[in-house]
Amino acid sequence: MKSDTEWGEPVAGNGLLDRRAFLKGGAAAAAMTGYALARSARADALADDLWSLAPGKTVQGYEQRSRFEEKVVRTLSNPNAEPRTQHARTPHHLLNGSFTPNGLHFVISHAGNPDVDPDRHRLVIHGLVRQPLVFTLDSLARYPMVSRMTFVECGGNSAPMFSKEPIQASVQALHGLCSCAEWTGVPLSLLLEETGIDPKAKWLIAEGTDAPALSRSVPLTKALDDAMIALYQNGERLMPGNGYPMRLLLPGWEGNMNVKYLRRIKLVEEPAMSYYEARTYAPILPNGKAYRFYFIQEVKSFITHPSVGLKLNGPGFYEISGIAYSGTGRISKVMVSADGGKTWAQAALQEPVQSKAFARFRVPWRWDGGPAVLQSRAWDESGNVQPTRAQIVAARGQSAKTPPVTAFISQHYNGPTSWSVAASGEVSHVYA
Amino acid sequence: MKSDTEWGEPVAGNGLLDRRAFLKGGAAAAAMTGYALARSARADALADDLWSLAPGKTVQGYEQRSRFEEKVVRTLSNPNAEPRTQHARTPHHLLNGSFTPNGLHFVISHAGNPDVDPDRHRLVIHGLVRQPLVFTLDSLARYPMVSRMTFVECGGNSAPMFSKEPIQASVQALHGLCSCAEWTGVPLSLLLEETGIDPKAKWLIAEGTDAPALSRSVPLTKALDDAMIALYQNGERLMPGNGYPMRLLLPGWEGNMNVKYLRRIKLVEEPAMSYYEARTYAPILPNGKAYRFYFIQEVKSFITHPSVGLKLNGPGFYEISGIAYSGTGRISKVMVSADGGKTWAQAALQEPVQSKAFARFRVPWRWDGGPAVLQSRAWDESGNVQPTRAQIVAARGQSAKTPPVTAFISQHYNGPTSWSVAASGEVSHVYA
Repeated sequence: MKSDTEWGEPVAGNGLLDRRAFLKGGAAAAAMTGYALARSARADALADDLWSLAPGKTVQGYEQRSRFEEKVVRTLSNPNAEPRTQHARTPHHLLNGSFTPNGLHFVISHAGNPDVDPDRHRLVIHGLVRQPLVFTLDSLARYPMVSRMTFVECGGNSAPMFSKEPIQASVQALHGLCSCAEWTGVPLSLLLEETGIDPKAKWLIAEGTDAPALSRSVPLTKALDDAMIALYQNGERLMPGNGYPMRLLLPGWEGNMNVKYLRRIKLVEEPAMSYYEARTYAPILPNGKAYRFYFIQEVKSFITHPSVGLKLNGPGFYEISGIAYSGTGRISKVMVSADGGKTWAQAALQEPVQSKAFARFRVPWRWDGGPAVLQSRAWDESGNVQPTRAQIVAARGQSAKTPPVTAFISQHYNGPTSWSVAASGEVSHVYA
Repeated sequence: MKSDTEWGEPVAGNGLLDRRAFLKGGAAAAAMTGYALARSARADALADDLWSLAPGKTVQGYEQRSRFEEKVVRTLSNPNAEPRTQHARTPHHLLNGSFTPNGLHFVISHAGNPDVDPDRHRLVIHGLVRQPLVFTLDSLARYPMVSRMTFVECGGNSAPMFSKEPIQASVQALHGLCSCAEWTGVPLSLLLEETGIDPKAKWLIAEGTDAPALSRSVPLTKALDDAMIALYQNGERLMPGNGYPMRLLLPGWEGNMNVKYLRRIKLVEEPAMSYYEARTYAPILPNGKAYRFYFIQEVKSFITHPSVGLKLNGPGFYEISGIAYSGTGRISKVMVSADGGKTWAQAALQEPVQSKAFARFRVPWRWDGGPAVLQSRAWDESGNVQPTRAQIVAARGQSAKTPPVTAFISQHYNGPTSWSVAASGEVSHVYA
């Protein structure tokens, strides 16, 4: 293993190394065995494996995962589809990279995923417009399109972080209601140019064609800014759980507002105060009031590797890696601590860092086998920073640890997450 | 519909419009109905659809596509897995955005996809090294990782373009052996730092654990530049057809060299002259010689919308859209013609444009219903430009139109593709 001198001085406590140590690059003419993670090759390392001795499986029209990956799934809150909401959470600890594959993008479905026939589906824009219009999928396909990588996050994502004591759960259970994809579709502003906008219009009501006819009110300013009628998700048509064949995409705004199975947009003077905006996503705060609306998913980060469920296999080198994002723009900086917040090292951000999208951050770490508490904290280009846990709990309210939860189910947690590493290599969730 | 004045002057012949016309943005207070693609809303447009009247489908652990998308598949050259190569081609005309979803990434498999057990799989690096090493998937997971969006293209992609007469086939059939994904893994240079490199080593031989033990020789300079041991594809583990659980990734280089199911890397003084490099990917050229190696997939582009199989539904506005990429860096410019190459308009490139990755280009177009021939031509940041068809055919050789093909099966076609639009809206493949 490299000596401390070869690695360079640690840049923060408990073994955090300089992220630039790995960017020096170039040829290594001498064996440095800095990581010491591989074992020496024995003669039998060149033996054939069983699967090399016969032809493999036939290639199919649509590729399916290896059977060895079948355990990599979203966790389901309601797998038998009882008459209540179904949640499917993204397994961030089993993924890597800058976005979420379509099979594992989180889904919240309030009455199952409707089986929409794309040839019969229509989008109507009406209300305070000059000319109400009906759009088919075929007509939308002819408009100018844009693609953008952006995250969608439920306002209730990370709600377990409001509990009084840290819940022992994986990053999937804690933060799995957030995912990121490249969405391609038609800017909503172009369609509103077609219908015309009555000067009295200040909001729109977007409504889905699912059984609850989920509807949310959106300020017209957002509609004319970066809103999109999304038709493609990571290159192919939207997945059923993400609103096939079309959804409203409001980059950086509360997930529930990104109305799926979009069928109607009605321009109006005042918001509708619909079920999800007046009740579910407007909980009572500690001061007895409630936000009438809370649109933005604010700057946030969490470490995915290591995290609960990923046991460390002895001391030595590891890469600490995670996800940061902000509903107000690009992530500008992520700091990581291995000593519970006493000292911090700046993480490397995977380029290109895109606005309102996941940024993968990485920090090299030499674990000495002693106790360590891992944390991350993110900043965005607007100067916003993740609050401390105390700050966000004071603002949003604390839940009881165990059911029944308090009357207010707090939302929009964007404080830090802390993982404690024991000498055994086990990772647990702590408040630090 | 907007008048010509409202759209601004066309920027090239046959209706090509200014790509910036759509970037002016902002609120449109008056109905301009510039696209005229939607119809007026009738009262029945607000009626409920059948799928709105009952709960939908249960959310699953791994999301599956809508049943209405089952026709969007890769075309298979050998669906019954006869004892020869299987090709699965990407349906570019049915996708949109900047990369290829995992289900539809192209695959060439010479003996089916091996059913590799990731816990038993090993990567051995040996030969001219100081210390041969064995890497497991678990040990690789601890190394510093990088993510990069990059295309992989078969050297034989677009080979039908060498035929004497234009083959009437879709963009999937012509160019479907190229796809793009975000790959995440460990830089090969880090692993070679671990093994050490004997100064005599100039090449490596990479070998897969599939039944043919496919092997290719790679200059060590590339291995120490941007080569990666890829472990994740678009966020999740590699698909079986793309080398699960690990492949060699050589950004911008001939697809076949990106060895799948990678099990061995042997450092050597001279290339192996293996089957695929000495025979399949070294065809005889018109001058009687053959390239000993031809690594780079050069700058290229093609239009995906409209293209063969996508019939235009009457005159009016369309977006012309396609894909450009270069094995030597970023795409710097794409020009599009609607009059068979007489005049050209500059396309908009979807940001961020990434090195050795797909760049989605788009141009607005008003089709007047008359004959049109659509073409694209791309430049990269190194100043390379797509050759004309005549140039590349002269260099690489022309195939007979119909089987039996000539003895040389030409490769590395990167000339233009031309789509002819008839008054009926039908699109056909022409040489122009």
